[in-house]
Amino acid sequence: MTASTATGLLAATPAAWYEAALGSLEVLLVDHANCEKKAASTALGLMFSYADDVALGLSLARLAREELRHYEQVLGLMARRQVRYARLPPGRYAAELRRAITTHEPGRRLDLLIAGQLIEARSSERFEGLIPRLPEDIARLYAGLEAAEARHRSLYRGLAERHAAATGLDYAARLAALASVEAELATRPDPLFRFHSGPPG
Amino acid sequence: MTASTATGLLAATPAAWYEAALGSLEVLLVDHANCEKKAASTALGLMFSYADDVALGLSLARLAREELRHYEQVLGLMARRQVRYARLPPGRYAAELRRAITTHEPGRRLDLLIAGQLIEARSSERFEGLIPRLPEDIARLYAGLEAAEARHRSLYRGLAERHAAATGLDYAARLAALASVEAELATRPDPLFRFHSGPPG
Repeated sequence: MTASTATGLLAATPAAWYEAALGSLEVLLVDHANCEKKAASTALGLMFSYADDVALGLSLARLAREELRHYEQVLGLMARRQVRYARLPPGRYAAELRRAITTHEPGRRLDLLIAGQLIEARSSERFEGLIPRLPEDIARLYAGLEAAEARHRSLYRGLAERHAAATGLDYAARLAALASVEAELATRPDPLFRFHSGPPG
Repeated sequence: MTASTATGLLAATPAAWYEAALGSLEVLLVDHANCEKKAASTALGLMFSYADDVALGLSLARLAREELRHYEQVLGLMARRQVRYARLPPGRYAAELRRAITTHEPGRRLDLLIAGQLIEARSSERFEGLIPRLPEDIARLYAGLEAAEARHRSLYRGLAERHAAATGLDYAARLAALASVEAELATRPDPLFRFHSGPPG
């Protein structure tokens, strides 16, 4: 597999995942709301871990604000569709991707930023694939979000490349390693349907 | 001591704290940036803990977005004043207030919301007291933030009262207990100057 130069992703989402999404719209929306909240929380976590990097702090604060706004927009859509919020056990994606992240600095920071890049890239890819298939109200919201996720992917990529340049770490090598884990999680059959899951098992 | 009906605070900030602030403007700004980030993180923590309360989630997402925006504004002011970000050991305020919080639900949720109310109330009170004393550029920024902090205080108070009404807990009793701890932390001599510290020891 070769990485898509634009996105970093090594594999496209299988058609079976999109079919599962259309059959699980309520779970898709609830899990999506959780993902936006989690994305804001992850950005804040990086702002605390690397508090002396003001450029990182400023850009991730803006990103977190956008993710929170998306969370509010998804909750608004759920209210209009009378979808009740329900607690969902988390899928495997974030936990397993996290397991591949280096535990020591400065490598840890590079990996966390690349993980951010890949998650935003996968979100953006799935929004794009979902939009032509979804009911019009959800498609309209997702069209707005897709552009933001693509911007967030570029932001994380820029922060990762800058950190690699400053520390002499190999961005391309770590992207290849983490993108390989990510592609496997997004394409291997998965017992739980979620926004970032694999296709049904 | 009787609680101020409007703010819930049991004691005014001592004049000596304001004098210390004017002599420690760089620490004030850096710690204030940290406080805004921490306020966003606390709101997000509540959104995760009480994820099935959509009204709480929506209002705290908006609050967190505002706190992040303030963080960005403080960093902007620091850049214009050429104040370098520096890591500061945390003061005693948040940790000691947290120690007074009930460990079991449903009391824990009430206490966390009241703690939010008191922290926002103290922030708002100190902004108001600082504004006439500060250099004009900082005063102008703080005038904008003060109104938001007062709104956040009311938001937390409303969420706390609603939760107390739904569970039969005594809002006034818990406010009195936590406000007493808070007032002591804000007025007892403190070895470290911080945005929420006591006056110098």
